[in-house]
Amino acid sequence: MKAIPLAALKVKSGFWHDRMETNRKSTIPAIQKQVKHRPHSKTMEAMAYSLLNHPDARMARELERGVDALEKQRAESSVPLGCPPKEKLAQRMSNLRDSHALYQIGHWMEAAVAHHEATGEARFLKMASLTGDYLCRTFGRGKRKRRGYPGHQEVELALVRLYEATGTKKYLDLAEYFLDERARKPHLFDKEAKARGEKPSEWRYWPYTYNQSHAPVREQDQVVGHAVRAMYMYCGMTDVAELTGDKELMKACRKLWKNLVQRRMHVTGGIGPAEKNEGFTYDYDLPSEGAYLETCAAIGLVLWAHRMLNAHEDGQYADVMERALYNGTICGVSLDGTGFFYENPLAVYPGFNGRATFEDPDYHYRRKKWFTCACCPPNIARLIAQFPRFIYSAKDRSLFVNLYADSTVTTGIGNQQVTVAQKTDYPWDGRVKLTVTPEKAATWTLALRIPGWCRKVSAKVNGRSINLATCSKKGYARIKREWKKGDKVELVLAMLAERVYANPSSRDTGGRVTLQRGPLVYCLESADNGPRLNHLFLPGNAKLTTSRDRSIPGNPVVITARGKRRSLEGWGNALYSTSQSGTTPATIKAVPYFMWANREPGEML
Amino acid sequence: MKAIPLAALKVKSGFWHDRMETNRKSTIPAIQKQVKHRPHSKTMEAMAYSLLNHPDARMARELERGVDALEKQRAESSVPLGCPPKEKLAQRMSNLRDSHALYQIGHWMEAAVAHHEATGEARFLKMASLTGDYLCRTFGRGKRKRRGYPGHQEVELALVRLYEATGTKKYLDLAEYFLDERARKPHLFDKEAKARGEKPSEWRYWPYTYNQSHAPVREQDQVVGHAVRAMYMYCGMTDVAELTGDKELMKACRKLWKNLVQRRMHVTGGIGPAEKNEGFTYDYDLPSEGAYLETCAAIGLVLWAHRMLNAHEDGQYADVMERALYNGTICGVSLDGTGFFYENPLAVYPGFNGRATFEDPDYHYRRKKWFTCACCPPNIARLIAQFPRFIYSAKDRSLFVNLYADSTVTTGIGNQQVTVAQKTDYPWDGRVKLTVTPEKAATWTLALRIPGWCRKVSAKVNGRSINLATCSKKGYARIKREWKKGDKVELVLAMLAERVYANPSSRDTGGRVTLQRGPLVYCLESADNGPRLNHLFLPGNAKLTTSRDRSIPGNPVVITARGKRRSLEGWGNALYSTSQSGTTPATIKAVPYFMWANREPGEML
Repeated sequence: MKAIPLAALKVKSGFWHDRMETNRKSTIPAIQKQVKHRPHSKTMEAMAYSLLNHPDARMARELERGVDALEKQRAESSVPLGCPPKEKLAQRMSNLRDSHALYQIGHWMEAAVAHHEATGEARFLKMASLTGDYLCRTFGRGKRKRRGYPGHQEVELALVRLYEATGTKKYLDLAEYFLDERARKPHLFDKEAKARGEKPSEWRYWPYTYNQSHAPVREQDQVVGHAVRAMYMYCGMTDVAELTGDKELMKACRKLWKNLVQRRMHVTGGIGPAEKNEGFTYDYDLPSEGAYLETCAAIGLVLWAHRMLNAHEDGQYADVMERALYNGTICGVSLDGTGFFYENPLAVYPGFNGRATFEDPDYHYRRKKWFTCACCPPNIARLIAQFPRFIYSAKDRSLFVNLYADSTVTTGIGNQQVTVAQKTDYPWDGRVKLTVTPEKAATWTLALRIPGWCRKVSAKVNGRSINLATCSKKGYARIKREWKKGDKVELVLAMLAERVYANPSSRDTGGRVTLQRGPLVYCLESADNGPRLNHLFLPGNAKLTTSRDRSIPGNPVVITARGKRRSLEGWGNALYSTSQSGTTPATIKAVPYFMWANREPGEML
Repeated sequence: MKAIPLAALKVKSGFWHDRMETNRKSTIPAIQKQVKHRPHSKTMEAMAYSLLNHPDARMARELERGVDALEKQRAESSVPLGCPPKEKLAQRMSNLRDSHALYQIGHWMEAAVAHHEATGEARFLKMASLTGDYLCRTFGRGKRKRRGYPGHQEVELALVRLYEATGTKKYLDLAEYFLDERARKPHLFDKEAKARGEKPSEWRYWPYTYNQSHAPVREQDQVVGHAVRAMYMYCGMTDVAELTGDKELMKACRKLWKNLVQRRMHVTGGIGPAEKNEGFTYDYDLPSEGAYLETCAAIGLVLWAHRMLNAHEDGQYADVMERALYNGTICGVSLDGTGFFYENPLAVYPGFNGRATFEDPDYHYRRKKWFTCACCPPNIARLIAQFPRFIYSAKDRSLFVNLYADSTVTTGIGNQQVTVAQKTDYPWDGRVKLTVTPEKAATWTLALRIPGWCRKVSAKVNGRSINLATCSKKGYARIKREWKKGDKVELVLAMLAERVYANPSSRDTGGRVTLQRGPLVYCLESADNGPRLNHLFLPGNAKLTTSRDRSIPGNPVVITARGKRRSLEGWGNALYSTSQSGTTPATIKAVPYFMWANREPGEML
C-alpha cells in the first residue's frame, strides 16, 4: 500500500480537527515563541503540514520568513543546510557518535520536503538537495569518501523522503549505505573515540546498543537502546526495504517489530521505559511509576507502524499505530495546546522521586511550557499536523481506511478520481459513515480496517448488510463492488469498556488492570477519585459503565464502576499494624489517559 | 537511664557474636584494605570497639599504627586532628555548607574517644581535645569568634562524647552552641555563598531543609532533608537536652521522633526514601522499589533511638532501635562480611531502572566491595562492633534489658557489682534465660523489655511465674525483688509469623503486605520463589508456617505459606489481553530481609 499525499486529504471536523486546530492556533505559535521565531526544522515541517489542511496567512508568512533566513545563512556561510559554521562542522562531523550533525540535517531535509509539498516551491527543497549532494560526496564506500553513519539516526528516513520528492536515486542509495555501514568492523565510534584520545569502552553508553550500532542492522532482532534513535532507524530500514524490494532487510524489520509489540511496548503504545538511556531495557519490563516513555518515542512508533502497515497491508500494524497515536503521543500535549510532557509514565503522584528535581518538583504531573532539550513539543506538533496522512492508504484498485476520523480523501483509482468522505464521532463512538463519490461507477475495493480491539462489528452498504466474515483478511474488510456516486457505507464497531491485563511475565503489572474502550486506554485521576489511587480496588465482577462527561475538559466518555477503597478507619497515628483495615465502597471513575493532567494536579494511575 | 560502658559488656556467643566475629575477621580487614591501611576515623572507632569485645593483636597493632600516623601528621602540619593542610583548611572552613570539615573532625573525635575507651591510653584523646579546643577558640558567640555550624552534622554528638570522656564542659557548650546557632538569621550559608559570589537560591538543595538549617532546631517538627545529617543532629540534640536538662530541646526531639516513626519510617526501620536528597520526602511516602534507605541513615536511627531510649526509659524507643538494627542496618553487609549495600530498597529486580548504571547494572541486587563515597562500610562496622552497648541500660537501682542477645553485663547497682548473663537463640527463638550474680543479696529492679511486636509473654523467676501485668510499665516488665546469686529468670516471648500492613495513607503499599516474626521483617527472593514475585498472592486466610532452614546461608527461620501465582498459560506471545489468566498454587517462602542477596542474584520483594 502507499500513503496518500497530504494535499489529497482534508480533516475539517471531529476529534482530530480539534487537535489540529489547537495545534495550528496554539501549539505552533507557542513553539515559535519559545524558539524566538528563528527557523526551526520540525516546527517548519509542522507549519507546512498545517497549511496543507488549513490556510493561515500568518503561518505561511512565518514559514517563508524561515526559508528566507535559511537562504541568507547559507549564502553567508556556504555550509550545508542546517549545519553550523565551517569550523564547527568539521568538529561535529568528526564525532558522529555524540554530535547530532546528521540528525539535524535529516530534520531540515524533512522540513524542506514538507515545504515543497505544501507550497510547490522549490527553493527550500533545493537547499536540501545541495545538502544531500554534500552528504553523497562525503560519505560512502568510494575511494575519496569517508565511511560513517549517524550516532542519532534520522537522516536515513529523511534521505528517502528527499529521494521521493526529487526522484534522485543517490539519496536512497546513501540511506541504504548508512544503514548497512552501521556496526561495520572496525567500529566507527571506536575509531572516532581513539582519534580523540578516548577509550571507547569508557563511553557511558558502552556497549553500542544505545545507538543500535552493536550489530549490523540486518542481524538485529531485539529493540534496544535509545528509543527514538531505534524508531527512526527502523523507519529508514522499512523505507529502504520497501523501495528496493530488499526482503532480508524487511525480515529484520518484522523481527524487531515482534520483539517490540510482543515484549516491550506499554499498553499506551509508549516505548522505552528507562530514563538512563531514554530507551529500552529488557523483555516484559513494563513499569508504571517512573516509566520514561518519551513522547518522541511514541511518535517514532507511529511513523514506523505507518510504514510497516503500508509495506505489509496488515491491520496489526494499524492497531499499534492507532494505540500509539491515541495513547502514547497526544498525551504529550495539553488540551489547550501549550503544555508538554516529555515523559509519559503510567502512574504519577506528587512528590514522586523520579526525574522530579527540587526546582521542579511537579515535573511528572504538570505539563511544561518548554524543555532544555525541546525535541518533544515540535515533534508532537508535526505529528498532529500530518495526522491525515495516517487515515487512508491506496493500492492498485483499493482504497484502505486505516483509521476512523472525520475526513475526506480524493485519490486516483483505476482511471478516475474517487472521493470518500468519512463522518464519525470516533474515538467516542464506533459508528462510522462513509460516502463514496467516484467520477463514474467502477469496480474497486474499499477496505475498512476492523480494529484488533473490536469484538463485534457490522457494516451496511446503502442500508444492506455485508457479510464481513467472507471479505475480511488481515484486519481489513475488503468490500469489492461497483461503487457509484453517493454510495453509503455504515460501519458499526461495538465499543465496550473492557479490562486489559498484561502478560504475567511482566513483573510490574502484578495485581493491576487497566481499562480500555475502543482505541482509548483509560486512567484514574485523583481529580475524580481522591488521593491514594493505589488503595482503590476494582472487583473482577464490577460492571463497567460508560457515559459522556461534559463536566470534564474535552468532554470524554468516562468509565465508572463500583469499587472499593481501603479505609483509614482505626489507623490513627499507627504507621504499621498486623490488622488490615476494611474497605469502603467507592465509585471509580476513569478518563482517557491522553486527557490526564488537564485539571487540578494530583495523582494518576 | 544510662548506657553501660562497653568494657563492662561481653558478647561471646549467639547471633550477634557471629556478626561481630565476621566484622572483626572479615569486614574490618576488608575495609582496611580498601583504605590502603591509612588511618580512617570510623574504621579506627570500629577496631577500638571490636578490641573491647575480643582481643586481636594484629588489629590492636593496626589501630596503634593509625594513631602513630595521625601523630606524625599533626607534628608535621600543625593543623587540628583530621583536618587537611593549612591552606586547604581555611578554604574548607569558609564553606561549611558544602565541605565536610566539621563532620570529619567529629568522626575523628569519636574514634579518639573509642580508642581511649578501648586502651585506656590518652594520646589519641589528647589530639581530639586539642581539636576540640581549636573549635572552641574558633566558633561561638564571643567577640573574636566566628559564627558558624556544620553543613553535615556530626560534630555536635562527637563533642558530647569528648565531653563525657574528658569532663571538659566547654565541649558540651560548643555542641549546644552549634545546635542553637543553626538557621540563625542572617543565614550562615547565605553569607558564605554571597562571599563566594554565588546566589544562595541557586544551590541545588535550596531551601535549606536538606541540611536541616531551614528553621531553629527547637522549632523543627518534621524530619526533612538528608537523612544521615538529620539523625546525627537529632542525636546531638538529645544528648545536649539530656545532659543540660533542656526540656524545650527534648520536646523538639520527641516531636521529630513522632513525625519519623508515625509517618516516615519504612517497616525495616530504613529511612530517607529519596535518592535525590538521600533523604526524606513527605508523610506516608513508603515506596518499595527504588527506595533509597541508606544503610548509614538506619545506623543513625539506631544511635538516635538509643539516646531517646535512655533519655525516656520507654520501650517504644527500643522497639524502633531493634527494628532498625535487625532490618535496616545489617542488611547493609553480606553474611560473609565483605559486600555492602549503600541503599536498601524493599523490592528489587535485575535491570531495575534506579541508580543502576550501564557499568554497574546489578547495583541494586548485589552487594558491592566498595563505593566512591564509602561511608556505609565503616559505619556498619562500627555499629556492629559497638552492638553490646545497646543491650542494657542502668538507672539507680535498676538494670534494664533492652535487647535480647547472648551476653554478660557487669555493673554497679547500689554499692555492689552485679553480673547478669543472658542466653537465648533470639531473634530465631523468643526464649531467654538470665542468670543473676550479685556480690550479695539485695533488692533492686531487673527490667525486661516486652517488645512491641510481642502479643504473648510469660516470665518465671527461679521457676515461679511472675504476674507481668502488674509490673509492666512503658514497655518494660520491672521485676523488683531481692536478687541472690544464681537467681534464674526465664522469659518466653511468643514469636508468631504475622502479616504487617501499612497505613493506607501510604500510596505505595496498596495491595501489599509484609511478613514479620519477632523483630525480623521478611521478604521473598526469587532464589526461593522463582521470578515474577509481584505475581504471587498471599490469600488472607493462608496459614503462615515457620521452620528453621539449614539449606540457606545463615540458617534462618523461614516462613512458608500456600499462596498462588498468576499463570502464564495461554498467553503465548500476547502482551495484553482482555482475559486475565488463572492462578496456580504456589508455596511462598519468605526469608529475613536482612539476609537477602546472599545467594544467586535475582528479584526481591
